[in-house]
Amino acid sequence: MQLGFKTDPGNPWILRENAFNLKHLGKTEANMCLGNGYVGIRAVTEERYVNETRDTFIAGTFDKFNGEVTELPNLPDVVGLEVEVDGQTLDLNQGEVSNYQRTLDLKNGLLTRMFNWSYEQRTYRFTFERFVSMANLHLVVLRVTVTPTTADCVVKIKSGIDGQQTNNGSQHLIEGDKRLFDNHYMQLLTETNESKINFALSTCHEFETPDHRPVKQQMELGRRQIFCKYQESLKQDETLQLVKYNTLVSDRDIDFNGHNLEELQQFGLGLLKESSKRSFDELLAETATAWKRRVWNYGKVQLKSDDPDDQLAINFARYQLAISTPEHDSRMNIAAKGLTGEGYKGHAFWDTEIFMLPYYIFTKPAVAKQLVEYRYLGLAGAHQKAKDNHYEGAQFPWEAAWPSDGETTPKWGAADIVTGRAMKIWSGFIEQHITSDVAFGALEYVHASGDQQFALDKVDELILDAAKFWSSRLEFNEAADRYEIKDVIGPDEYKEHVNNNTFTNYTAKWTIETAIQIYEDLKVNHPEKFNELSERLELDRCYPVWQRRVDKIYLLEPNQDGVIPENDTYLSLKTVDISKYRHAEHVGGIFDDYNLEQVNQLQITKQSDVLLLLYLFEQKFATKEKQINWDYYEPKTTHDSSLSLSTHAILASDLRMTDSAYSFFQRACQIDIGPDMRSSNDGIHAASLGGIWNAVVFGFGGVRLLGKQLRIEPHLPKAWQQLSFEIFWQGQKLHLNIDQKQVTVATIDAQVPVSFTNQGHEYQLKGNESVVITL
Amino acid sequence: MQLGFKTDPGNPWILRENAFNLKHLGKTEANMCLGNGYVGIRAVTEERYVNETRDTFIAGTFDKFNGEVTELPNLPDVVGLEVEVDGQTLDLNQGEVSNYQRTLDLKNGLLTRMFNWSYEQRTYRFTFERFVSMANLHLVVLRVTVTPTTADCVVKIKSGIDGQQTNNGSQHLIEGDKRLFDNHYMQLLTETNESKINFALSTCHEFETPDHRPVKQQMELGRRQIFCKYQESLKQDETLQLVKYNTLVSDRDIDFNGHNLEELQQFGLGLLKESSKRSFDELLAETATAWKRRVWNYGKVQLKSDDPDDQLAINFARYQLAISTPEHDSRMNIAAKGLTGEGYKGHAFWDTEIFMLPYYIFTKPAVAKQLVEYRYLGLAGAHQKAKDNHYEGAQFPWEAAWPSDGETTPKWGAADIVTGRAMKIWSGFIEQHITSDVAFGALEYVHASGDQQFALDKVDELILDAAKFWSSRLEFNEAADRYEIKDVIGPDEYKEHVNNNTFTNYTAKWTIETAIQIYEDLKVNHPEKFNELSERLELDRCYPVWQRRVDKIYLLEPNQDGVIPENDTYLSLKTVDISKYRHAEHVGGIFDDYNLEQVNQLQITKQSDVLLLLYLFEQKFATKEKQINWDYYEPKTTHDSSLSLSTHAILASDLRMTDSAYSFFQRACQIDIGPDMRSSNDGIHAASLGGIWNAVVFGFGGVRLLGKQLRIEPHLPKAWQQLSFEIFWQGQKLHLNIDQKQVTVATIDAQVPVSFTNQGHEYQLKGNESVVITL
Repeated sequence: MQLGFKTDPGNPWILRENAFNLKHLGKTEANMCLGNGYVGIRAVTEERYVNETRDTFIAGTFDKFNGEVTELPNLPDVVGLEVEVDGQTLDLNQGEVSNYQRTLDLKNGLLTRMFNWSYEQRTYRFTFERFVSMANLHLVVLRVTVTPTTADCVVKIKSGIDGQQTNNGSQHLIEGDKRLFDNHYMQLLTETNESKINFALSTCHEFETPDHRPVKQQMELGRRQIFCKYQESLKQDETLQLVKYNTLVSDRDIDFNGHNLEELQQFGLGLLKESSKRSFDELLAETATAWKRRVWNYGKVQLKSDDPDDQLAINFARYQLAISTPEHDSRMNIAAKGLTGEGYKGHAFWDTEIFMLPYYIFTKPAVAKQLVEYRYLGLAGAHQKAKDNHYEGAQFPWEAAWPSDGETTPKWGAADIVTGRAMKIWSGFIEQHITSDVAFGALEYVHASGDQQFALDKVDELILDAAKFWSSRLEFNEAADRYEIKDVIGPDEYKEHVNNNTFTNYTAKWTIETAIQIYEDLKVNHPEKFNELSERLELDRCYPVWQRRVDKIYLLEPNQDGVIPENDTYLSLKTVDISKYRHAEHVGGIFDDYNLEQVNQLQITKQSDVLLLLYLFEQKFATKEKQINWDYYEPKTTHDSSLSLSTHAILASDLRMTDSAYSFFQRACQIDIGPDMRSSNDGIHAASLGGIWNAVVFGFGGVRLLGKQLRIEPHLPKAWQQLSFEIFWQGQKLHLNIDQKQVTVATIDAQVPVSFTNQGHEYQLKGNESVVITL
Repeated sequence: MQLGFKTDPGNPWILRENAFNLKHLGKTEANMCLGNGYVGIRAVTEERYVNETRDTFIAGTFDKFNGEVTELPNLPDVVGLEVEVDGQTLDLNQGEVSNYQRTLDLKNGLLTRMFNWSYEQRTYRFTFERFVSMANLHLVVLRVTVTPTTADCVVKIKSGIDGQQTNNGSQHLIEGDKRLFDNHYMQLLTETNESKINFALSTCHEFETPDHRPVKQQMELGRRQIFCKYQESLKQDETLQLVKYNTLVSDRDIDFNGHNLEELQQFGLGLLKESSKRSFDELLAETATAWKRRVWNYGKVQLKSDDPDDQLAINFARYQLAISTPEHDSRMNIAAKGLTGEGYKGHAFWDTEIFMLPYYIFTKPAVAKQLVEYRYLGLAGAHQKAKDNHYEGAQFPWEAAWPSDGETTPKWGAADIVTGRAMKIWSGFIEQHITSDVAFGALEYVHASGDQQFALDKVDELILDAAKFWSSRLEFNEAADRYEIKDVIGPDEYKEHVNNNTFTNYTAKWTIETAIQIYEDLKVNHPEKFNELSERLELDRCYPVWQRRVDKIYLLEPNQDGVIPENDTYLSLKTVDISKYRHAEHVGGIFDDYNLEQVNQLQITKQSDVLLLLYLFEQKFATKEKQINWDYYEPKTTHDSSLSLSTHAILASDLRMTDSAYSFFQRACQIDIGPDMRSSNDGIHAASLGGIWNAVVFGFGGVRLLGKQLRIEPHLPKAWQQLSFEIFWQGQKLHLNIDQKQVTVATIDAQVPVSFTNQGHEYQLKGNESVVITL
């Protein structure tokens, strides 16, 4: 497929850039971002460039800048270096660059950049390597070498910790102490303005010089900065090597809860001293092992495809999910842009439940459990949001940050530049399906994992509370004797203030139905828990209301052709030809010709809610119904949401439109690593990366959770000779090996029998059994 | 003299740069800064570079960032432009640059940059012009032209208002509304965080295209940003011209006191609309007239010198003083770095009274009066400082910002990087001579202007209040029956925590003596005022105390050689050879070899307080005494303070060491425009610029205020054939024309007789009389 990066033939783990391009800074910074779920550092170059976005984030460290909504503060930078050779500051805009390459090795998270730089008849060889440790969440290590290849040379390097970074001009951090310990270890302390989170960043530099010559060193302090300037003379072909060790710690870290600043400082410094005794290669080997242990050993996906980039895209998606997911702390969730950019301020959306949670449910259930737990921890904020809107129960925030923050969607966007009036951002108010999505995701985890204890402890309560919200949200239409939900935004965000959005109404109904089942089950099977919850949530008051209302929730009937209306009015709107926007180079082209108000009045869809519904509740809809609605909605869809393509890939695969499915899959893969060199500027699209895995495993792999049942009905695209992957089901591991003709399903050391269905047949495996099913 | 700029032969008004150099950004930004005393904008280039410091300040708009001391916030930028030709962003690091020149015309404040830029075989001609209006304080205008000279071309320009600037990472501003009016006029509102000062920045773009072709326009909003992107196709040799009009207003402006934000917005917008109807050339002509009327018509200085750069340096000094002095508002003072950089945070120091006030006293007394009034407005803050330190009266702040702020010197500097302990900044606590300096400056204004009403209204009170402070500050040494002042820093800041610093004790005594005279004069001649002040300041309690103490204030006796000790211990300290630091390329070299504690223990002086005292109170000391002390102290002085050189130039001139005086004068001139390309990075040295004028008029011109008497005893350096200048004395204008042999002094329309002395003879002139005195 067409990519914005080069690749290494035969090695689907390498993202490569063979020429430096100032216009591609944002693309490479986000896609080649390093991280470990705790810290994320955009792949800025060591030397600075004007349009760079030099972001470092620690998950969960939210702060509010004066009157703005909470966001992840951009932390002091530790990867910047100013390198001077023979008086000339390294700057790839100047002089000549040759043999340039930059690679990200997805397998171990090593970012490498090397090139020759010639300036005024002299040439220098540079290498820069960098990784964020997956073995120790707080550790960031760089290695730099400089070799003059044409003459003797004086090298100067200025390096340290630079706290002058901002979030696009907003500064969350108060400068704290800057210290040098033992004339060698630097430390900079800083604290967020409003949330009072403390950070300690510690850095040291270890040099290797020819003949172990000492390097000249001089401290330089600036505002929010602590630097050291180093100087060394090199003979031609001699190499100077610098390893820069950095540790980042914060008292938001669960380990430092209740500890004082002194302990934080000491921990950061101690870890730095320890780490800097070990070589770059040793620490890199350790991180590579951790990548294998923590990431690649779970949910392996292997492909034989005519297009080797398919495998790369899958590896890339899994890499990005790994660096973005705060596996270490259930008080945090996966941000829409991961830790790769300032876009969406580090907030989590329904993206998690619908697009990323499935990956973890099937590959690393413990992480899925944490992500659900995050929502449970957010109940207080969800209660507050419901209360603020005069509803009951738990209304989950459209944008979520720290669990207790509740709703964090900005209330006002920029002023409409023409009218001068501030424009309201409606999603935090009326994009209400998030509450269903959270309940849906939580239950999927329970069904797939079989984790009944967690259901009892948390998920049941969460769903009951969500149902309370929906029940209070319903509006009775007396004339029609039905309950309606007016004035919402569905997943198709082109349509604001619609009534009876099918996705919303359907999932609200589903939530209440599920709550009724949970109520009844708890009452019979877990009376003690039932009593506790019943008292807390007033279930005895709610239950009869739910029963009365649930079947009267209004779901729009399909029209005479079988088309399920997206909302009350959609099918009556004007249609226009949107083909030019569907295949544009950049998204959002529709707004070159129409404003949002106009789009609201047309049968144009950003992503189709109806189709998403058919995918999520697929057992409830017949194939024919799906095909009719696909044929109706897909041509009206711009796919301007990064969430759209993977859903369509799965649905197309289900409908056996395999070419189309494959095309949607590849387009989904291109959202970040594809040829649009601006698409990732604000950060990668985490949901779409989850969607890539979904498209592979749920789409082509045909894996599906139907209620509580696992279904496996693969169907590979023509380009794929073989697809194999591993999934967890009910705590057991399954291995699937699929080719164009058959699928082999095997259990791996299954302690209990594992069942699944294929074309209506049920199979059961245990131990290390396998079964071959012809497709 | 050796300069860091090129000059135009025969035109001492042009500061020129003939090659772009990334390493000289700070130098050119500060020295070529534009302003009008209200707004200051560093001479950043339109296109951005990594190490630029893109500062815009409005005088007096102080704000505190979280826990830091108050400073002038760096405002949104209006001079930045992103220019793209044929898809390539203008960047002088790339491609080839030829015929480059940048000039600042000191006469009218026009900054011009022009060059040819070649990229990939295509060449483009660019001109950028810019001025900050001296006719309308709120107006900033740019003109840009682009001409492709080798082929047709597509030009894109992105321009608007960019609020992502910070003060080295600290953000004072809260983002407000961004609006576009009439699809043409942009406005960005913003507010300081703590002081709640509102700003409205308004911008519009007027294009001139071949055949009046319309320019394509598209809005682009970012965080804290409002931009418009323009696009136009040009044929070879066609020129696109853009004039960008900007208005900056703030509700700190005295005109907007009590007005609401809406009025502020409307004013900014209205002014923009009005201004943009007028051409760049018309507005430039208007500003040139204003420069003549407001600046150059006052205190003209003309030289015939062997070195034409002498005249340039004087013009430059006057230019910088003009753009730095808030003539529009006495609630503001001149910052140590003017409005040219973030150094010293926009604070005012004793620099004003000792180094800059004299310039205004003798050239534009109304401004001098305002600068004194600023201190009067600061009495509440000075009372507070005294009270905080358990003293009485008015203890003026070492660093002053908004009048009511009181002391604004940072209390703590960076941690000592070795010990890790935060280092106290002592000047705000113990550099106490500022209170004498303020009193001294105020009285100089009264004596030179003869403004008795102002003395009665403000200066008398100010000096009485200052004397109250000093009286309470004195420490009685019972054994010696004398009053001492311990633990201070004198003007020689190398010596912290010294006792009986001669400068401090002498000026404290002078303040109390002066207060006693004022007390006695008021009592007799202005009984009503006396009663009012007496009650308010408890003068009847204070006066007898002053009388008892004043003659017992301890002044160190000269030693047997006639050397006046700088303080109790100075003469007993070790001496070392400091010649290598005295002629170093950069200041501060002493600290490469010694730390401050060590320097404290050596006879090394940053600037000599004793010599400064001999200059300020010259009638009190015999020439021989001056010579002895010069011979002793000057060789021990590093002149690492930018304040030192001009004082030494004057004193050397007084001592008829004319070569030495001229050398000190030229070194003073070089502090900013000289060859050290880093010296002005944080901003120019306003005091030293005042010092240049002082060295000319007080030094070589021999003008001096001796008590209430004007003395004129010129003595030109060999290189100067002629020096002529104008000064105000007692409200009348004097013209002096000096050559190597004689001085002609003339009054210009003098309404009352004007007296002055020369070599003990008194002269009196009135009307348009003149006298020729042989030297």
